[in-house]
Order: sequence, then structure tokens, then C-alpha cells
Amino acid sequence: MPKLVDHDKRKKHIAEATWRVILEQGMEGATVRNIAKEAGISLGALRYYFSTQDDLLVYAMELVKEQAEARINQIVVEDLPPKETIVKILMELVPATEETMAEMEVWFAFIAYSRHKEAGFDARQDGILHGISHMIHYLYKTKLLKEGLDVDLETEKLYALVDGLALHAMLDPNRINRQRLLGVLTSHIDSICKE
Amino acid sequence: MPKLVDHDKRKKHIAEATWRVILEQGMEGATVRNIAKEAGISLGALRYYFSTQDDLLVYAMELVKEQAEARINQIVVEDLPPKETIVKILMELVPATEETMAEMEVWFAFIAYSRHKEAGFDARQDGILHGISHMIHYLYKTKLLKEGLDVDLETEKLYALVDGLALHAMLDPNRINRQRLLGVLTSHIDSICKE
Repeated sequence: MPKLVDHDKRKKHIAEATWRVILEQGMEGATVRNIAKEAGISLGALRYYFSTQDDLLVYAMELVKEQAEARINQIVVEDLPPKETIVKILMELVPATEETMAEMEVWFAFIAYSRHKEAGFDARQDGILHGISHMIHYLYKTKLLKEGLDVDLETEKLYALVDGLALHAMLDPNRINRQRLLGVLTSHIDSICKE
Repeated sequence: MPKLVDHDKRKKHIAEATWRVILEQGMEGATVRNIAKEAGISLGALRYYFSTQDDLLVYAMELVKEQAEARINQIVVEDLPPKETIVKILMELVPATEETMAEMEVWFAFIAYSRHKEAGFDARQDGILHGISHMIHYLYKTKLLKEGLDVDLETEKLYALVDGLALHAMLDPNRINRQRLLGVLTSHIDSICKE
């Protein structure tokens, strides 16, 4: 009987090995050789799934995006009050846990790596701007947004705030810890919403 | 007669060559060999000033910091109204011109490079948090800051906003252009100040 292999599971296993290598050795250590070793598979097996290193890195980044989306969808169905939902979602986009810190490391390493290369993943299309635009529009439509605020400018501000906090939390996790992230994001959402 | 060499000028010339190499080839191209070639000097001459590549990169980063400080000091002595001064200074910290874009590229490449290395320059100590803290305290002391705002939280917010905008402007300069940066920063400073 032929061996049955769950290909999606195997790809995910390889992508997770990729993350561990990036986290430990930086992007320059993320060679197919090191990744195959970390995943405990042969180079040939790795190449079966990802023919080039770029393919593999793009897949690892897509997985970061998918995981974040899954967590966010989970929050949406909880049906909490709007401000609470928004702060909870924003907390999934900054390094407030080990998981989100790892995602930030991969995201950052990927951006740095792809700056001077043609990669199949466009870091500008990570979906965060779109999601934040959606939140601000929602606050506007439900009349929770303070009068006179510009939806477009508030979107840009919140987007920059989230990525700036994410960057600072990655660089200085002791100072910008979970509590600090929650404090700043809550205070910002409060400042743009009616009482 | 011995040849007179202005050592500071020569170091600066080398540091500038380093930037050009980083901008064109990314941090992985910033080898002493490539930098010597770009600066039009011998490897030996380069090593006279910088014995290791790390020394050179740290110096290039220090120079970014010094240049930004010089521009900011220039703004301070202009003695404009407080809000105007603050927005003008913040605009020096985001990629709004070719010069500040180049600085951002070097800063970003340096952070990415030094994430998994022991480097002599701590990216957390770039002076920006300190400068922003100073601005918010100034607004508070001169009673320009809106009542009830927390000085500490507002400092963290503005710091994250500035670095988030800087990141987005680097990644997507067409969308986050000079005008957009000015609009967001002006709107934010207006939002935390009294009329």
C-alpha cells in the first residue's frame, strides 16, 4: 500500500521549521539546507514541496497572514462590544504573545530580505491596512467615531500606530510589553470614540 | 612634505560610500571590499579607519543620527510657534525627502542586520524616544497639551506613530508621500493640543 502523506500538514511542518531557523539564525541562515535539517527531512523532500528558497519564504509569510486572520475571525464571532472587539483584534497584530512575537520576527526579516529582491509576496499587501480601514469605517457608520474626524486620516494613523508599536515591541520587548501595548491601543481607540 | 589628510572628512566620505552601497545592494552587499571600491580607496586605506565591518556600519549609523540632530537643532533655533516647530521636527524623522529616505533605508537595514548580532550600536538608543518625550513634556508644561492626557502614553503613541509612518513611507513611498506624512503628523499634533 502506498504511504499516505498529508501534503498540507507537511508543508506547514516545513514552514514552521523555516520560522524556527529564521528566529534563531536570522534570514541569512534560512537556507534550504538548514531548513531541511530543522524539519528533519531530506533536501529532496523539501524541494518536492518548495522548488526555490523564495517559494518557501513566501509560503511561511502567507502562513503568518493566515494564522493572524484565523485568530481575528475567532474574535469577530465572539460578538463583544465594538471598542472591545477592535482593541482585541489590534492586540493580535502586535507582538503581545510568543506567537505574535515570532510572527513579527518573521515579518520583519522577510521585509528586510525582500527589500532588494523580487519576491512573490508584497509586504504592502499584508491585509492590515485593509482591516484597519474596515474598523474605522465601522466606527464611523455606527456613529461611535467622534464627530469631525477624517476616516481616511484616522485609518492611516491607526495603521502607523500599530506597526510602530509592533516594531518597538520587537526591538525592546521589556519596555513595550503586553500591558503597555494594551494601554496604548486602548487609550488611542478611546481617544477617537465618543464616550 | 607629508600629505595632509582630513581624517574626519575621509571617514565621512567612507561612511557615505557605505550608505550608497547599502541602498543599492542591501546590507548583504555592504562588504568592506564593495565599500572600498565605491569610496575609490584601497582596502588597506579603508581598514586604517575601520578595522572591522561592524565598526564601519556603526559609524554610518552614528552619522545618520548626527545629521538628523543637526537638522533638528537648526529648526529649534528658528523659534517658530511650538506646534509648528514640533511638526517640522517630526518631519525630519520620517522619509519625506531623498535624504531622510536614505537615512531610513540605512536605519532599517542596520536594525535587520544587527537583530541577530552583537553590534556596537543599539537601535533602541537612537535618541528619538528621548526627543519625543521632551516634546510632549514641553507641550504639557506650556499648557498646550489637552487636559487629561497622560504624558507618558502620549509619548509612546507619538513615538510609535512616527516610526510606523517611517516604515510605511519606506515600503510604499508613492502612497505615503511627503504631503501624506505632513497631513497625518499635523492632524495628530492638533488632536493632542488645545485649540
